Amino acid sequence: MSTSEHGYVVAVDIGGSNLRLALADMNGTIAARWLSSTAGSRNADQIINLIRRGIDHLLEETSTPRAALRAIGAGAPGVTNVDDGIVIVTSYLLGWRDVPLRKLLQSAFQIPAAVDNDVNLAAIGEFSSGAAKGISHFVFLAIGTGIGAGIVLNSHPFRGQGWSAGEIGYMLVPGIRDHVRTSGKPGALESMIGGEGIKAEWQRQWSPEGTALRIDSTPTEIFDGALRGDLAARNLLGQTARLLASAIYNVSLVLNCTLFVLGGGVGTHPALVAATQQVLDQWTEREPLRVVSSTLGPEAQLIGGIRMALSAALSRSDLAFS
Amino acid sequence: MSTSEHGYVVAVDIGGSNLRLALADMNGTIAARWLSSTAGSRNADQIINLIRRGIDHLLEETSTPRAALRAIGAGAPGVTNVDDGIVIVTSYLLGWRDVPLRKLLQSAFQIPAAVDNDVNLAAIGEFSSGAAKGISHFVFLAIGTGIGAGIVLNSHPFRGQGWSAGEIGYMLVPGIRDHVRTSGKPGALESMIGGEGIKAEWQRQWSPEGTALRIDSTPTEIFDGALRGDLAARNLLGQTARLLASAIYNVSLVLNCTLFVLGGGVGTHPALVAATQQVLDQWTEREPLRVVSSTLGPEAQLIGGIRMALSAALSRSDLAFS
Repeated sequence: MSTSEHGYVVAVDIGGSNLRLALADMNGTIAARWLSSTAGSRNADQIINLIRRGIDHLLEETSTPRAALRAIGAGAPGVTNVDDGIVIVTSYLLGWRDVPLRKLLQSAFQIPAAVDNDVNLAAIGEFSSGAAKGISHFVFLAIGTGIGAGIVLNSHPFRGQGWSAGEIGYMLVPGIRDHVRTSGKPGALESMIGGEGIKAEWQRQWSPEGTALRIDSTPTEIFDGALRGDLAARNLLGQTARLLASAIYNVSLVLNCTLFVLGGGVGTHPALVAATQQVLDQWTEREPLRVVSSTLGPEAQLIGGIRMALSAALSRSDLAFS
Repeated sequence: MSTSEHGYVVAVDIGGSNLRLALADMNGTIAARWLSSTAGSRNADQIINLIRRGIDHLLEETSTPRAALRAIGAGAPGVTNVDDGIVIVTSYLLGWRDVPLRKLLQSAFQIPAAVDNDVNLAAIGEFSSGAAKGISHFVFLAIGTGIGAGIVLNSHPFRGQGWSAGEIGYMLVPGIRDHVRTSGKPGALESMIGGEGIKAEWQRQWSPEGTALRIDSTPTEIFDGALRGDLAARNLLGQTARLLASAIYNVSLVLNCTLFVLGGGVGTHPALVAATQQVLDQWTEREPLRVVSSTLGPEAQLIGGIRMALSAALSRSDLAFS
């Protein structure tokens, strides 16, 4: 059989600073990838043009005819109405409001498209072939620059009535500095354990006597330092783990979930995963909560996007797109 | 038509200290009620015998033939497996473990039975004809001696994979005194804003100069005192409202729910409802959270029980019970 008989789908991960694409066959196997910076091209039309360049590149690289494309699954870094295909609001990095992303994709490429929040896509990815494979109830927790949660209940993403379930960056736990939620600013929890928050906490706590690390260290450098025994780094790791464990514990009480998959550049650091598990083990004697690292890493969103695209290809291949 | 052609159902609310029954027609209209103390008769067989006495009384009082009974819906104060009809665990007041309540009811009365956690039943009651009538996503928060939440998502109770969703009495919020969850003890939040917790906090904070109220005041007396301007009572009301508002806020982040119905003797006090709403209004500028008092009050569980019984009568009237 030719590739066009098999067909292909495209997964798109729209980030605050990068755009990533993957071309996959109808089994979900990735054939090629493409990456671009989104610096200077962040409105929706510019992003669509970037996606067009990426798709052209992927088709050429794999000698795939355009007619073999069956569907697109795209993740956006913001609250997304999956039913209507609209990105309701993103962070300031993109600054989108009510962008009809699915319609734009379908118009541009004349194939079915599906859109979702990027963290939900990552949760779908981990569910389909990652750390939560076959687990019907779990929470994917992305900690990178910011924080977000993708919730899976009864083997389906739970998105909430306003599409913003899992906004735990604003959670109020013991040890946070601030209650108030101000529009456009990081949440109370996020401002302490998101990537930027950890850097700010480090700078607040740093003294030349207390550590061998620099004041402008990254979260990864700080957690690496903690593993080497650096005292100040260990203190900040402990603080971060306690705050994160409190948030995980609270989510587990509400949802009755016991598996938490940590993703994102900060969330997957082995020191944070282990320290968080250790705190939770002290709190929960009867019902253990399990904290594991994402096994798909940055691929999770793309694999979730492929799953969405495959569903879109199957369920809506008879629709016309304009 | 005779009453037996119409049929009747029985709702049962098994509490830590009281047993309540209601007899209702197939429209859900309550025809009669019965109440008994459970003091000294708390194991499951004793409770079944008490229910038998109550049903006999209700049938006699309303001149209803036994053959007109179609189903029973019962709520238990503990984690309940609704599918299997088993009460997994209750608080120390009853001390039940893995009690096959549905089977016991069906054996005793030879009619279909359905069982659920009492707070979930109250949520179903508020959804069917109370403060959340027709609201597809909301949380019912019962604050009496202890605390529990009944979650409704997409117009259905959400109970969690282990039947214990909504256990927010253990939630970790700023201002709690203790992290640790010890088996058989009240949770961190509950120990401060449950009925017993409020009494303990009052005793901890009480001084003869600070208040006109006695050291052994009840939560209702304290909140009444706050409404009259008693300074110490206002302080404790404020503390309770901030802790409760934090828990509500956290639940809203996870579930993307905006309506919270407060039930229970403590939760429905107008001073607490108003103070909690006031705190939340300060925190949420864009997405307002609404806190309202239960409109059904202590009837909520019974009305939820009637709903469950009506469903059981309709869906399982062809089954045999042994």
